[in-house]
Amino acid sequence: MSEGPYDLAIVGAGPAGSAAGIYAGRAGLNTIILERQMAGGQVVISPSIENWPGEKEISGPDLSMKFRGHVESYVKIREFSEVELVGHDRLFTISTPEGELVAKALIIATGAEHRKLGVPGEDTLSGRGVSYCATCDGFFFKGKDVLVVGGGSTALLYAIYLHNIGCRVKLVHRRSEFRGEKALQEKVRSLNMDLIMDTLVEEFMGEEQLDGVKLRNLTTGEVLEVHADGAFVAVGEIPRNEIARSLGVKLDREGYIEVDRKMATSVPGVFAAGDVTGGLKQIVVAAGEGAIAATSAFDYLMEPYWTESG
Amino acid sequence: MSEGPYDLAIVGAGPAGSAAGIYAGRAGLNTIILERQMAGGQVVISPSIENWPGEKEISGPDLSMKFRGHVESYVKIREFSEVELVGHDRLFTISTPEGELVAKALIIATGAEHRKLGVPGEDTLSGRGVSYCATCDGFFFKGKDVLVVGGGSTALLYAIYLHNIGCRVKLVHRRSEFRGEKALQEKVRSLNMDLIMDTLVEEFMGEEQLDGVKLRNLTTGEVLEVHADGAFVAVGEIPRNEIARSLGVKLDREGYIEVDRKMATSVPGVFAAGDVTGGLKQIVVAAGEGAIAATSAFDYLMEPYWTESG
Repeated sequence: MSEGPYDLAIVGAGPAGSAAGIYAGRAGLNTIILERQMAGGQVVISPSIENWPGEKEISGPDLSMKFRGHVESYVKIREFSEVELVGHDRLFTISTPEGELVAKALIIATGAEHRKLGVPGEDTLSGRGVSYCATCDGFFFKGKDVLVVGGGSTALLYAIYLHNIGCRVKLVHRRSEFRGEKALQEKVRSLNMDLIMDTLVEEFMGEEQLDGVKLRNLTTGEVLEVHADGAFVAVGEIPRNEIARSLGVKLDREGYIEVDRKMATSVPGVFAAGDVTGGLKQIVVAAGEGAIAATSAFDYLMEPYWTESG
Repeated sequence: MSEGPYDLAIVGAGPAGSAAGIYAGRAGLNTIILERQMAGGQVVISPSIENWPGEKEISGPDLSMKFRGHVESYVKIREFSEVELVGHDRLFTISTPEGELVAKALIIATGAEHRKLGVPGEDTLSGRGVSYCATCDGFFFKGKDVLVVGGGSTALLYAIYLHNIGCRVKLVHRRSEFRGEKALQEKVRSLNMDLIMDTLVEEFMGEEQLDGVKLRNLTTGEVLEVHADGAFVAVGEIPRNEIARSLGVKLDREGYIEVDRKMATSVPGVFAAGDVTGGLKQIVVAAGEGAIAATSAFDYLMEPYWTESG
């Protein structure tokens, strides 16, 4: 016996899923939010947020709590609920740790995760010196030696940010030129930090805590060990698109879900919002998209097919 | 002598323009926000807002003040500054009450205004019983007789809302069927309010204050006068697209600015966000679009043309 049918299942309780929940609940849709970890998404792990309109500065946990309280006045969030899509005709069947549930419409708000280098020491030292978010963890490395890995705009921004808060920064990139914005490249160069080009990270070293990084120069083959208290990896993000893939939803070349301006995907009844759709990965953008997705789901559920069958 | 050149001029200080200002300021763009009235846009006139994520309930003026304080920590808002575009090559020249100013990029966040019926008494009794926003002004008509004019979802929502707060509602529509969402139609029918179909408003009547409305049935030609303390007109919105038109920016059939997912318009250097771009007219959607527009303007200004010429 399946739970439901719900009008709407929202997968993910970050800013996109939360805004979708508020709008769906207010619209009177029987809605459930399924979150594989804690509600809040990447917001929860952000120490300080300064670009959520109306809040000059707020901690990630505080903003998450505000979202959560608001959402839960309308709909339920089920945390630690890793889900899988197990079937769909007009109804979507989802397996959860508590059993199967059924919903008439779906919003995918599963976000994206940081791409890893896949080298020895990365996993064991993650959270012990190896990080994927300078604005989250940079604070702990004030006045210390840090390495930034990558050549895109995010890597350049991390380097500038870490320099500004007082780290001694080395920037390591596997190519001979950066890919990131020109202005950021110029800014990085003006700061006189070490730019270690044509170089791969081979290993993160350290026992309990990161204390060095093994590098290899791709041109000369030379292997170099540098001291580092922190290492910030910025080599891209991977959308969490498993559910989209099992539904046959159309993705772009990087694996992000393709949506139209109503946040509808290529599969009727399936909507998406937030980082999993690519674009600008910002809280307020994700929230706006969540509001649109919920409103579009409401419109979808007002089709005669649903209103006649109840 | 013109003021500037600014990196970016944002026209409109509602949620879209405010979010754009925060993001532009944080990105280091030399930015000015030009607002024809008071900062805040339609938010200022909303008594209560319940769908801005994180705030279960906040007054429009309070939310506006929060936005404003945040924006002004980064960029200047110039109020009561009705502007006009007077020229552009790569730079945009804008006339303001204080003289001309020049900017390298432009974000149009001018919003939309409520469509009027254009009948006698409408202008003179506006704000004296005639209103365009039930959630703004409904409160004043508790327990009184009100008329809602229109047949779309907004009109249906107004009728439900006003009924719920204790008004005696008559709904007047010029066609024989409503256009709005089916569920809202059913809801309206379930409330047993007067539905006056095939009927036009001919005149709003009253001296100091609305006290009646003259209606004409289009099928029978019959003219009817009904008593009304309030009348809520919900017959659509008109995008404020004057600046877009003078720039030759591509508009859709209803006059909204066409944008891509980066909020870029058809004219290089011109971006748009919020209600003037159509779509879902909600604060959080406008704010998300403003953040995207500012980020896209930043990218545009990082092109070699601008960084080389300073």
